[in-house]
Amino acid sequence: MLEQLKEAVFQANLALPKQGLIKYTWGNVSAVDRSQQLFVIKPSGVDYETMQASDMVVCDFEGNVVEGKMNPSSDTPTHAVLYRAVPEIGGIVHTHSTWATSWAQAGVDLPAMGTTHADTFYGSVPCARFLTQEEIDRGYEAETGNVIVETFQERGIQPLEIPGVLLQGHGPFTWGKDAQSAVMNAVVLEEVAKMNVVTRQINSYAPELPQRILDKHYLRKHGKDAYYGQK
Amino acid sequence: MLEQLKEAVFQANLALPKQGLIKYTWGNVSAVDRSQQLFVIKPSGVDYETMQASDMVVCDFEGNVVEGKMNPSSDTPTHAVLYRAVPEIGGIVHTHSTWATSWAQAGVDLPAMGTTHADTFYGSVPCARFLTQEEIDRGYEAETGNVIVETFQERGIQPLEIPGVLLQGHGPFTWGKDAQSAVMNAVVLEEVAKMNVVTRQINSYAPELPQRILDKHYLRKHGKDAYYGQK
Amino acid sequence: MLEQLKEAVFQANLALPKQGLIKYTWGNVSAVDRSQQLFVIKPSGVDYETMQASDMVVCDFEGNVVEGKMNPSSDTPTHAVLYRAVPEIGGIVHTHSTWATSWAQAGVDLPAMGTTHADTFYGSVPCARFLTQEEIDRGYEAETGNVIVETFQERGIQPLEIPGVLLQGHGPFTWGKDAQSAVMNAVVLEEVAKMNVVTRQINSYAPELPQRILDKHYLRKHGKDAYYGQK
Amino acid sequence: MLEQLKEAVFQANLALPKQGLIKYTWGNVSAVDRSQQLFVIKPSGVDYETMQASDMVVCDFEGNVVEGKMNPSSDTPTHAVLYRAVPEIGGIVHTHSTWATSWAQAGVDLPAMGTTHADTFYGSVPCARFLTQEEIDRGYEAETGNVIVETFQERGIQPLEIPGVLLQGHGPFTWGKDAQSAVMNAVVLEEVAKMNVVTRQINSYAPELPQRILDKHYLRKHGKDAYYGQK
Repeated sequence: MLEQLKEAVFQANLALPKQGLIKYTWGNVSAVDRSQQLFVIKPSGVDYETMQASDMVVCDFEGNVVEGKMNPSSDTPTHAVLYRAVPEIGGIVHTHSTWATSWAQAGVDLPAMGTTHADTFYGSVPCARFLTQEEIDRGYEAETGNVIVETFQERGIQPLEIPGVLLQGHGPFTWGKDAQSAVMNAVVLEEVAKMNVVTRQINSYAPELPQRILDKHYLRKHGKDAYYGQK
Repeated sequence: MLEQLKEAVFQANLALPKQGLIKYTWGNVSAVDRSQQLFVIKPSGVDYETMQASDMVVCDFEGNVVEGKMNPSSDTPTHAVLYRAVPEIGGIVHTHSTWATSWAQAGVDLPAMGTTHADTFYGSVPCARFLTQEEIDRGYEAETGNVIVETFQERGIQPLEIPGVLLQGHGPFTWGKDAQSAVMNAVVLEEVAKMNVVTRQINSYAPELPQRILDKHYLRKHGKDAYYGQK
Repeated sequence: MLEQLKEAVFQANLALPKQGLIKYTWGNVSAVDRSQQLFVIKPSGVDYETMQASDMVVCDFEGNVVEGKMNPSSDTPTHAVLYRAVPEIGGIVHTHSTWATSWAQAGVDLPAMGTTHADTFYGSVPCARFLTQEEIDRGYEAETGNVIVETFQERGIQPLEIPGVLLQGHGPFTWGKDAQSAVMNAVVLEEVAKMNVVTRQINSYAPELPQRILDKHYLRKHGKDAYYGQK
Repeated sequence: MLEQLKEAVFQANLALPKQGLIKYTWGNVSAVDRSQQLFVIKPSGVDYETMQASDMVVCDFEGNVVEGKMNPSSDTPTHAVLYRAVPEIGGIVHTHSTWATSWAQAGVDLPAMGTTHADTFYGSVPCARFLTQEEIDRGYEAETGNVIVETFQERGIQPLEIPGVLLQGHGPFTWGKDAQSAVMNAVVLEEVAKMNVVTRQINSYAPELPQRILDKHYLRKHGKDAYYGQK
């Protein structure tokens, strides 16, 4: 069932430690098959050195296991909420990468301070609020997904223009058209999270990127007038 | 004698440089056999590239060598005190890892600022005080163990809920149910030590993790209601 | 056509991730054949793991493709401007390396604070201004080149004495007598960008390098009285 | 001539990039044969990937080449001064390692803030002053050696108790009983240079290591009562 997607999700999970985004099992990647309304996700707490593509777990959009012998990632309900809420998302990544997680712990939106950011994120990456006790009791992981959706709605942000979020006190989620691009967005987020810390250490009054440069860089890579890369 | 435990301790020692926690021989791992009241520990100052499992030294709970041709780690008496004082400890790790050691040098408790911390440490990791001249004269390494025990008792901390400590001006000790989990706890400690520095650099008023999130994350991985990982 | 130069440019592009200067395809290297008034540059957005020397694109000094099946780097017009404006340049590198990019985001010139800097850059590496909306509309990449040229002219800097620049909000460009030396200059720039941040963190009043030491180090490696290296 | 020493010096030079202390050719190691009053040193500016043991250059204590086809390191006169001035030195290392060089650029002594430092350096690592114009004119590299010797004499420091120095605006020199131990001291210096920056970032009032702990750690590894390692 969904063998190709399992392989893609497996490879994307392996990319997390290779890209320096996680240690041990502190992360998870999933990807969706929209036609079947199913997604494939990493099993929970399995050693990356012994994990195989066939260990990937198939879930429906309520987060129920449809196929697989192992427990899916404990964050599965968060992924399920995101796939339900945003039809354009093809893959989702969660990590505890050092610099993005530090921004999440700081509880601060990550501003667009350079073109490395603007090439991928069309504005600040928002930091979503802590969950309340009520939300935790109702279901921590699903409510985490709901808080992400709430954050984007309240601020009027398009999830595909800003394909990532910081969860306060926790860490980043990123997404993309597939698992691989969600991983790439996680790498970009980690990198600009580091750059921005250093930038304001050099010059605590360093400005955000002017809107005209943000537009130029985002739009030369995204949308109908994009001219970056090969056709 | 204790061949399996020697192999486990040997592998755990090799994991320290692989995980970026030490350079040269600046660390040591031990693990205990409770039924025999013996523990196995790395020899002192031996090059990791030539060290073998058979070089591991077997000691009793007073720190005396029971088997082995080499001197055990100079920190052996510290390990012995911890095994005597806390019956649930199965393995102990000492490193001079960069970020945790910097917190030790700063003489400051490491607060729980995110879920990366909460998944492993159920609250602040305490920083134990400097030894007095009297304590140094009486036996530096054993008294180091006593100061760790004193720190946990005075603060009413359960050593298994906070499986690590910072020794002021020195570096971290971590422990766990076995050598491998003690190493994993050392990796977590190093990572959150780094994240917390960055967090307060981004926002010097960044809050500690709310108690409700600390509870949620610690308890979804530990205790009778844990649901992280595979059964 | 220009097979040797293609191979050199290909190798220099591969050196960028090896030296830790870029992730994915966030950089580009070119090199020039002055006799033919042509330069060779990396294709746009091609995965470094599958890229081959034969994928390199040949362009004229207006940035037009003369040979090659792929689109050249989107930054090609910037390279073209620099080759036209500075006849001594043999190779050009653009990266988004972490520390140099952070200085670019900070919008601050990188001062000469040590001999690591002075061995390669004979004074501060300038930070060129943001482009105006007019310049962006006229042609972002070519105007980027023009702003670099303007920066060096207005400040009276010789591009070969300071073989690099920071583009505000963007990142560094470096150059050299060939592709390989341009890469080396990018490595030096990244390293001193990091050192200078740390230096002023240790001592926020740390002085710039005295002129006499700057002269000594630059001139023992460059010019007619150089005595570093082999003849 | 001195084939074994050449091999040792060659291997010690290769250890510099392996230990992350240098990039390209930004460092040099030498070692001495006291009985012949000769030392072996790396050639100047030779690529580490093609360099061979037979490329090492033999010099006398005035820094003259006694054997070797290549130019010796441009820093050879500094090494010569140190071998003449301090009879106990067996090997010398110079690097531009990131953190130690940043302290040198900051122009600040590196204080003993932890036992990682105390295990190797029995007190602060001094920062030697900039050379004057006169000294530069007289001979930059030899005078660099003289300023190191002056620094230790004026402060009454024993070079074997503090086996390293920071040259303001330049970088570190370390030494030891042989080339390998000089490299190890360079690794320690780099590590504590980083830790101390982080320490004071966490707590800008963090104390230096108390004298009693400095004594204990230095003396358990050095001198007649040492008990660290194997006999």
